[in-house]
Amino acid sequence: MLDAALADGTYSRESVFEVFARRLHGRRYGVFAGTGRLLELISRFRFGDAELEWLRSERVVSERTLDWLADYRFTGTITGYREGEVYFPGSPLLTVEAPFADGVILETLVLSVLNYDSAIATAASRMVHAAAGRPIAEMGSRRANEDAAVAATRAAYIAGFSASSNLEAGRVWGLPTMGTAAHAFTLLHDTEEDAFRSQVAAMGVGTTLLVDTYDVEQGIETAVRVAGTELGGIRLDSGDLPKLVGKVRAQLDALGATKTKITVTNDLDEYAIAALSASPVDNYGVGTSVVTGSGSPAAGMVYKLVAHKTDAGEWIPVAKKSDGKASVGGRKVPIRHLDSSGTATAEVVHVLTTRPPRAEGRELLTTLMSDGEADASFLGPDGVAAARAHNAKAIDELPEEAFRLGAGDPVLKTLFV
Amino acid sequence: MLDAALADGTYSRESVFEVFARRLHGRRYGVFAGTGRLLELISRFRFGDAELEWLRSERVVSERTLDWLADYRFTGTITGYREGEVYFPGSPLLTVEAPFADGVILETLVLSVLNYDSAIATAASRMVHAAAGRPIAEMGSRRANEDAAVAATRAAYIAGFSASSNLEAGRVWGLPTMGTAAHAFTLLHDTEEDAFRSQVAAMGVGTTLLVDTYDVEQGIETAVRVAGTELGGIRLDSGDLPKLVGKVRAQLDALGATKTKITVTNDLDEYAIAALSASPVDNYGVGTSVVTGSGSPAAGMVYKLVAHKTDAGEWIPVAKKSDGKASVGGRKVPIRHLDSSGTATAEVVHVLTTRPPRAEGRELLTTLMSDGEADASFLGPDGVAAARAHNAKAIDELPEEAFRLGAGDPVLKTLFV
Repeated sequence: MLDAALADGTYSRESVFEVFARRLHGRRYGVFAGTGRLLELISRFRFGDAELEWLRSERVVSERTLDWLADYRFTGTITGYREGEVYFPGSPLLTVEAPFADGVILETLVLSVLNYDSAIATAASRMVHAAAGRPIAEMGSRRANEDAAVAATRAAYIAGFSASSNLEAGRVWGLPTMGTAAHAFTLLHDTEEDAFRSQVAAMGVGTTLLVDTYDVEQGIETAVRVAGTELGGIRLDSGDLPKLVGKVRAQLDALGATKTKITVTNDLDEYAIAALSASPVDNYGVGTSVVTGSGSPAAGMVYKLVAHKTDAGEWIPVAKKSDGKASVGGRKVPIRHLDSSGTATAEVVHVLTTRPPRAEGRELLTTLMSDGEADASFLGPDGVAAARAHNAKAIDELPEEAFRLGAGDPVLKTLFV
Repeated sequence: MLDAALADGTYSRESVFEVFARRLHGRRYGVFAGTGRLLELISRFRFGDAELEWLRSERVVSERTLDWLADYRFTGTITGYREGEVYFPGSPLLTVEAPFADGVILETLVLSVLNYDSAIATAASRMVHAAAGRPIAEMGSRRANEDAAVAATRAAYIAGFSASSNLEAGRVWGLPTMGTAAHAFTLLHDTEEDAFRSQVAAMGVGTTLLVDTYDVEQGIETAVRVAGTELGGIRLDSGDLPKLVGKVRAQLDALGATKTKITVTNDLDEYAIAALSASPVDNYGVGTSVVTGSGSPAAGMVYKLVAHKTDAGEWIPVAKKSDGKASVGGRKVPIRHLDSSGTATAEVVHVLTTRPPRAEGRELLTTLMSDGEADASFLGPDGVAAARAHNAKAIDELPEEAFRLGAGDPVLKTLFV
């Protein structure tokens, strides 16, 4: 595409690309995430010597295109929803304005980041609401690609997870981190008691002991004997949790460890968390399901050319018309309508022709990057904290039906006007 | 764990960790992938100043542990299945032998790489067999995390995909690459004909034109008029493909473009590919479903301590015994039994006590890393080519039932003897 557009001159046509999702796969709302990572990646997006040399040796593109790539640096403008915002099918989540070539080359990067991070944030948000205020730690790094894992836990935190077991995410994105002992630690020692004594000696009695390596009842007895009734917590990673947790709470209480917390892990997802709502669980740890989007591992967003300037200097809206995948051309301004109590009622998307719409609710677009310069407030750990805070506010506006876990329609309708 | 084990002295106990999957989630076999990436990552696994400084400032670990981490370099031995090998529940896929601390610290890295890459390779393998010899290109980068995407297409290639649209994977791993035009390219131009003329001028008549931006029938007429009957191919990315493909073939033939190939994309997975087996498709392009494991986005492998030396210098097997997650302790030697025609009949895993087993089939273990040095034949593009070749051979041994797409039991039983 780039080769041909550079050759025929259309590469320089001013263009507007838009990111949106066609559907939510049965979820009631989506959570938009990844922007803070994406803006940094776009700022650094370059073709270095190694890349150019390979493209040349493989004759992937022409010499003209290689020259263009060597000078590439994104200098356009990006507007979009704030990171952490909720969204619906058709919400114009990100708008990239640049000459065609400058914008088209970002498609894969933009979609990779937003599709993955939003899939994780959307799944995480459902879990957070199923947990009804109990903290959830993200512990799924081992079930995601090694680089994706860092992005996944960042997205889960934006959607309300309390902590991460991924130390690199703590370092890079400022997330609170936590750790846990694995069964290997118990198995390494000659007895379970030796393992618990060692852990308490190193971490203090506030630590959380994993009690299900051999026999849970015996493990708890040993844990309280070793650490005393001030033991911080115990963790259960197996068994029929709704039954087991009540029994374990009763045993801890009977031993006098009334403040010792119970953390459960074991393949939890939003449904398993909801099923534990009546059990005396204190903390959840979630792994596989959150880092894989709990059944929807990609948000399904697309990146479409929606308008460009003609050679005569006039903007024209464009859209694919084919079977089942038609889209809405033109630059858009989305507004979330709210009722008098502040509850969201509709996603109204104004398709711009000549003049901007009258605001009738909360304007959803903000400027993320101007002339290639990212707004620093969206970057790094500060950007993550802002996104988490924004998510909490946006979630608060949603009607109660948004939090149903069963498959259904989006909780807000998207209206193009 | 590391803090406590360094403090109590158990960190240095010689240990054996094993990677295996408990189940295949209804698939008949799994494809083991990621080893070539993993060996390189382990060779480079270090804690640098930035990491150590953060761990110190956050008081994540003690000073003693920081000193140990600063010197960390893996010097143990790793044996395992060859990359590309097929596997079954309980297959001892990777065995890491090292002092406890040296091995336990690799858990997340090992599992992240193997769980993701194997999930992709397993899904890809089902698609390759559903395609029955027609080539499949991997085009899903936009639906995977931006780093994971490179790993995903590598894994799909090992399982038999023919090419990748990810140029970085081509550069790093030596994969054959391909490109395609998006709808944006057509929409950028004043007419579809202008777009096709530009693409043919840049790429030659052997290129593949995307014909479904406006109207497929008209698009094909225009494509053949512009490129002539030597047009390389057309691509369909929407519509009811089983119906559409036959119609399109007839139209191309009627126009004299009898050698023009038909590529179909549009959210294909193994089931959609199978449903197209009677249609005159020439090439498939697969995106979302392969990079997300087509319903099983993580292979579910675990990393377990299975044996360690006692202070008396004796090896003892260890295993978790808890509810629903019991595992088999001890070092293992897996053999694939084959019948006289060379068809696999069972995965027989010898649990070593005193002496190695008599070989009765194909031995599955090979040495991947000795004293911290990776076997170079498994690394880089050569490693990928070897893994792809090995996969083809291993797949060839499987009984016909292995290729049923419906959910069912693993096609081979795993026997621990």
